[in-house]
Amino acid sequence: SLIAILPGDGIGPEVTAEARRVLEALGLDLAFEEAPVGGAAYHQTGNPLPEATLDLAKRADAILFGSVGEPSCDALARHLRPEQAILGLRKELALFANLRPAKLFAGLEDASALRPEVARAIDLLIVRELNGDVYFGEKGMRTTDAGLRQGYDLMSYDEGEVRRIAIAGFAAAQRRRGKLCSVDKANVLETSQLWRDVVIEVAADYPDVALSHMYVDNAAMQLVRDPGQFDVIVTGNLFGDILSDQASMCVGSIGLLPSASLDEGGKGLYEPIHGSAPDIAGQGKANPCAAILSAALMLRHSLGQPAAADRIEAAVASALAAGHRTADLGGTCSTKAMGDAVLAAL
Amino acid sequence: SLIAILPGDGIGPEVTAEARRVLEALGLDLAFEEAPVGGAAYHQTGNPLPEATLDLAKRADAILFGSVGEPSCDALARHLRPEQAILGLRKELALFANLRPAKLFAGLEDASALRPEVARAIDLLIVRELNGDVYFGEKGMRTTDAGLRQGYDLMSYDEGEVRRIAIAGFAAAQRRRGKLCSVDKANVLETSQLWRDVVIEVAADYPDVALSHMYVDNAAMQLVRDPGQFDVIVTGNLFGDILSDQASMCVGSIGLLPSASLDEGGKGLYEPIHGSAPDIAGQGKANPCAAILSAALMLRHSLGQPAAADRIEAAVASALAAGHRTADLGGTCSTKAMGDAVLAAL
Ligand SMILES: CC(C)[C@H](C(=O)O)[C@@H](O)C(=O)O
Ligand SMILES: CC(C)[C@H](C(=O)O)[C@@H](O)C(=O)O
Repeated sequence: SLIAILPGDGIGPEVTAEARRVLEALGLDLAFEEAPVGGAAYHQTGNPLPEATLDLAKRADAILFGSVGEPSCDALARHLRPEQAILGLRKELALFANLRPAKLFAGLEDASALRPEVARAIDLLIVRELNGDVYFGEKGMRTTDAGLRQGYDLMSYDEGEVRRIAIAGFAAAQRRRGKLCSVDKANVLETSQLWRDVVIEVAADYPDVALSHMYVDNAAMQLVRDPGQFDVIVTGNLFGDILSDQASMCVGSIGLLPSASLDEGGKGLYEPIHGSAPDIAGQGKANPCAAILSAALMLRHSLGQPAAADRIEAAVASALAAGHRTADLGGTCSTKAMGDAVLAAL
Repeated sequence: SLIAILPGDGIGPEVTAEARRVLEALGLDLAFEEAPVGGAAYHQTGNPLPEATLDLAKRADAILFGSVGEPSCDALARHLRPEQAILGLRKELALFANLRPAKLFAGLEDASALRPEVARAIDLLIVRELNGDVYFGEKGMRTTDAGLRQGYDLMSYDEGEVRRIAIAGFAAAQRRRGKLCSVDKANVLETSQLWRDVVIEVAADYPDVALSHMYVDNAAMQLVRDPGQFDVIVTGNLFGDILSDQASMCVGSIGLLPSASLDEGGKGLYEPIHGSAPDIAGQGKANPCAAILSAALMLRHSLGQPAAADRIEAAVASALAAGHRTADLGGTCSTKAMGDAVLAAL
């Protein structure tokens, strides 16, 4: 299979390099092709998502993505900013279902800001919609009748968009503990009201899944109070962005959490949920585990290699359990040393 | 001064009753007038915010609000739902600045899901915009060209709206530790880009305040990782809704956190940040501390009685330190017994 490697900005190249080493060590029949994306691509070509990169992403069987975001690009027009590359890939490839699992690794109880007994109970999956919501609605700057600058962004979902992500949520819950919590803000937003109506309609096809609904403000609170109550959470693009970052911290470090972004057919883009962390880029301090675990998700969801995925996950768990830790977890391992520890455990 | 008491739904009546007892015990020259609001008002009058209630709110010097939200109203048309009452009051009275302080009370280290050393460091104020954003933009249901139901809500801010809440944020930071963190999602939203631009413009008038910017996903993560890093957070209506509920849990219980919603002149509505909690309503289990502390904020911000406010806050702190706890904090006090404990400490 052909794997597109899009390292991107900041710590992206360092962490994807380790993930690639792990993939190569498995002895599978994989070919790799790299292309620039984000600020790196903008500086080389004037476009954060060059045609050639998008082409490669389309040709490939799966995409391993690093991260994008580069302070030197903050002042650019929106369509030239690094973030447009990941948003463009998600949209162009119709990667609408973002899976973000969060679970505490044994031995990391001390890394979480939560009490050990609270953190230990975490084993949840956030299913985030990725192609709609206020991310992709009409947006811009205009002048009000009173002559004031105004920024605006349209939030919306149609029933087709909600139905397909709801199905992804119910299906995930069936494969796990059978509980699905749909998060919205239906007491204020019409977009959320439609979301809730459609989720309830889809529920009829999944009588074996226990469905509940929660307002997003309450969900943010419950994720701190008692994250162990959740199995699968399904939510929109914006709320999913916020809640999944929050959940990541509950398990100790955002440097541990992978994600899969899938289309209807199972093709996917795999990326750590952390950002480009420009402050530590190029220093060998970044935690490569999220990227390595993203490679595992790729093997499971796009390459039909669940056993290899299990092997990688077990190797990361045992490297962590043996005390190998990067700085985000209070350790002294470099990015490469952490990669080595995972490779040794493989 | 005239205080409007709007008890509302669920546990609202129980907790405002305790707050009123505390206010009455101070021996100040206060008159009280009550009116129905929310689901309670809807069931009496067919309107969640009856004219007479709105009138009283306008006439009063300050408003003590309980909570709204009532499951029996969930299927009503949006304009008849309980939530419209609080949204309507905020808008009609131009209460644009919502102050939500969060600080750990001594002795409650064990109630927080966070590690004691993390929780102990919390002393922050969220300044949430309350009159704009996706809450009040054009919204509705429509049919797409493809014949699909679609829900939509327009998110927007103009520079005037951002400027006045930014000023409230900077002024609050000046009165505290001089740090202001503005939270937005400027890498995706034009509304946030305008927000950030205007906050930076306003900063020129506050050279003594250290301003930083954070994306909302990162803020949700940092509020778990290291909430002690924050002094004042200023943010929009939607992000403020989510982050303030999250912060509340970091200090042990949402039953402890008061809020003030102020207009340009300092007139205000004061309410616990918790909701109506229909599951425990009428059982005497609710924690009245958030309502009592809301009364303290009222004395400080609208009634020019800072010493009385300090007295109430000290009384709540000492009642808690003495071990009086309602069920949300793992105790056995009834709502009234907790009110008694605060009164005794006064
Ligand atoms: C970089 C940014 C556009 C992106 C998002 O908001 O989706 C990121 O925060 C994420 O969660 O993948
Ligand atoms: C009841 C609801 C409309 C309200 C809001 O979202 O503002 C509540 O959650 C709050 O935070 O005061």
